Amino acid sequence: MGLMAPQDLMFLAIESREHPMHVGGLELFTPPEGAGPGFIRERYEQLIESPEVGEKFRRRPGTPFNTPRNLLWATDDEIDLDYHVQLTALPQPGRIRELFSATSRWHSSLLDRHRPLWEMRIVEGLEDGRFAVYTKVHHALIDGVTALKTLQAVLSDDPEARDCPAPFAPRQRRALEGKRSRFNPVGLAKYGYGIAGDVAGGVPAAARIGWQAIRERDMVLPLRAPKTIFNVPIGGARRFAAQSWSIARIKAVGKASGCTMNDVVLSMCGGALRDYLISQNALPEDPLIAMVPVSLHSMVEDGNGGNAVTAVLTSLGTHRADALERLECVTNSMQQAKRMLTGLSPNQAMAVGAFMVSPLALAPVPGFVSHTPPAFNIVISNVPGPRKPLYWDGARLDGIYPLSIAMDGLALNITLTSNAETLDFGIVGCRKAVPHLQKLLTFLDDALVSLEKQLGLESA
Amino acid sequence: MGLMAPQDLMFLAIESREHPMHVGGLELFTPPEGAGPGFIRERYEQLIESPEVGEKFRRRPGTPFNTPRNLLWATDDEIDLDYHVQLTALPQPGRIRELFSATSRWHSSLLDRHRPLWEMRIVEGLEDGRFAVYTKVHHALIDGVTALKTLQAVLSDDPEARDCPAPFAPRQRRALEGKRSRFNPVGLAKYGYGIAGDVAGGVPAAARIGWQAIRERDMVLPLRAPKTIFNVPIGGARRFAAQSWSIARIKAVGKASGCTMNDVVLSMCGGALRDYLISQNALPEDPLIAMVPVSLHSMVEDGNGGNAVTAVLTSLGTHRADALERLECVTNSMQQAKRMLTGLSPNQAMAVGAFMVSPLALAPVPGFVSHTPPAFNIVISNVPGPRKPLYWDGARLDGIYPLSIAMDGLALNITLTSNAETLDFGIVGCRKAVPHLQKLLTFLDDALVSLEKQLGLESA
Repeated sequence: MGLMAPQDLMFLAIESREHPMHVGGLELFTPPEGAGPGFIRERYEQLIESPEVGEKFRRRPGTPFNTPRNLLWATDDEIDLDYHVQLTALPQPGRIRELFSATSRWHSSLLDRHRPLWEMRIVEGLEDGRFAVYTKVHHALIDGVTALKTLQAVLSDDPEARDCPAPFAPRQRRALEGKRSRFNPVGLAKYGYGIAGDVAGGVPAAARIGWQAIRERDMVLPLRAPKTIFNVPIGGARRFAAQSWSIARIKAVGKASGCTMNDVVLSMCGGALRDYLISQNALPEDPLIAMVPVSLHSMVEDGNGGNAVTAVLTSLGTHRADALERLECVTNSMQQAKRMLTGLSPNQAMAVGAFMVSPLALAPVPGFVSHTPPAFNIVISNVPGPRKPLYWDGARLDGIYPLSIAMDGLALNITLTSNAETLDFGIVGCRKAVPHLQKLLTFLDDALVSLEKQLGLESA
Repeated sequence: MGLMAPQDLMFLAIESREHPMHVGGLELFTPPEGAGPGFIRERYEQLIESPEVGEKFRRRPGTPFNTPRNLLWATDDEIDLDYHVQLTALPQPGRIRELFSATSRWHSSLLDRHRPLWEMRIVEGLEDGRFAVYTKVHHALIDGVTALKTLQAVLSDDPEARDCPAPFAPRQRRALEGKRSRFNPVGLAKYGYGIAGDVAGGVPAAARIGWQAIRERDMVLPLRAPKTIFNVPIGGARRFAAQSWSIARIKAVGKASGCTMNDVVLSMCGGALRDYLISQNALPEDPLIAMVPVSLHSMVEDGNGGNAVTAVLTSLGTHRADALERLECVTNSMQQAKRMLTGLSPNQAMAVGAFMVSPLALAPVPGFVSHTPPAFNIVISNVPGPRKPLYWDGARLDGIYPLSIAMDGLALNITLTSNAETLDFGIVGCRKAVPHLQKLLTFLDDALVSLEKQLGLESA
């Protein structure tokens, strides 16, 4: 057994039936030309016959109870792969709709703490002949970004390559350990705890450091988030929807408007959230505030940011009906947020981020969400993915959709990742607090089309 | 909101990730001759379009936390049937093996406490063209027997009948309320609590009454259960297996040996458990003890037992290699247990039962299972089912397999129900404590064949 880091413990300690603390990914694959009817099952059998499982994927909480005794990792020698990896199917007619519905269920249920905290499902029965892989890993084991990277690391950019290793095979250890990043909002809250080194404390020490940095530089917290239908206590069931958009389209809008791709994405989200809230008769007067993780690489003083990441708060311009005005709001707000970080050391910048996300850590405190105004309304993460098309034993990876964590006070999450030529959006929400979540897909597209129209671009 | 009965609260309070306290049923159906490919989906759509949901199936815990505050039932007006009823599919090749594997998963996950505590799955993709229905209901809402009865009550014995109502429709209320029985071991523990009226107390008052009855009648507790691999703390994952045996075969053995059908069933279980424990290299010297719920109808003094039920402990004769000797052990043990109850009033008899099962109520106490010798090794329930073949909109009910509750100290459960001409066995076990659980099916059959051979009967 090994001692568990306090920040990992946090993810186990605050977990409940209402807040599973696992992250997920849904990958869509097209089998290679000439693949037989057994192709999907063969992939499954190849996985469950993997001779070895990496140390990370053999770890489980030493005391399988939801208490602070949970301080040890135990490492299992034998792994019941037949349990962790499942072959599963969609009901007829096997549309994407059936896939999302099933994925919503899989993402809602808790992992078994008596076993290593991960599961994989190979999904057959899609009407178009494709197949999917849904993966679920506890946040105490791995953060979302690393989970996505791990899935990708075993794929090949050679469509002729065969015998790709299992993502949980030991050979992936280097990729896992080396690349563990903090590019993740929940990870950032964890970083806050990491500095504090004190799980029992309230506001993490990192947040105090962050607050100090803000005061010393005469900064002000720029934004105040309105209360929305997303900022409520949540239930245990989830809804999930996902879609890809062409990077070329988004780049064209960025180029024509002089904004970054990220600004365009945030403004799409702003437009979609506005339309959604109008459809629910729940649009607040003030603009929604998103918490957005940003890389410090090019921004911090000593240029030595490396993988360091912080978070900024940005307006989503949801109070503006005009798409270009929304984009302008987002761009201005992001520039202001970035200026605030300029000149900070990486540690200071990360502490500022930790300060901003510190309410995340307090969300599980009873009454906190109901009685405290939200610091932000939604987390929107943009996670870098593969730059080239990837293949699993010849099957092309068409999409890789992240499923992040909904929490009390944050009933909706949007995470996207780039995949060769597309941006793949994964949207997760509390089933009760965010009805008709799939509408957001249409609204996202509407928002992009509006921008294109106003900028005189053709929708691809 | 309505006040929750303390015995219902108990099932919510002792529930954890490791001990989901729901009961399940798996029904197998053959579609009618000439049914189109849309038959299964039509059944599903008929269910989710049900105009009304009965009061019982709209109840949820008022405070959705696992605490003693859980004292109120809230009743939802609107039910998200699309959540509670799912259409789902088996992966290829769609054998019974795939069905059991999927059912094991469904039975392992917790119900969402933010919603009424039940779920139904319509399962397509069986290779033989049949379909299945898996139903899961929290024990706080309904006991296992009532759940089975509710499922059956909406079916028809007329193969031509159509438009069978949904089991959760309001018209079933009478069946539910009227027939709520206590013919269930966990229900009996609940009865113990019911008499005590005190959830916080340790040994229920009913158990004290039972103990007194035993002393007054100069009875002794006849049996001492050995420690077995089944009597351990359990994990959250389950295994499930099920099979039907012809009632005619079992009756023939009973007739030839002069034993009851129930004795034959228990002796089959004894034989199967013996073979299984030998295969695991874990057969104890002393015979395993089963706790068996029995009806008081014909047994108690005043003949007014009605639905009253108690429990007896019986040896399963697992120390005997010879099938007939095992049957004799079981028969003697059951007769002794029944003699013990003769002459008691129904209330006394039920209190004796409650006393015997009282360790069930203590199982969730930390350390209790690890440090206390088991009172019995397994619960084996025989639940009366339909006497005639039943149909759902023309689809014949081929089997109705109960999925009961595994608990700390009781890692394996066997529950069976009669269905027209078969006895349908449903076996549920902790996935970790009971590996290769499906072997029990073969061993059950072996045990029956051994009896038949020794009695000179032909296996059907």
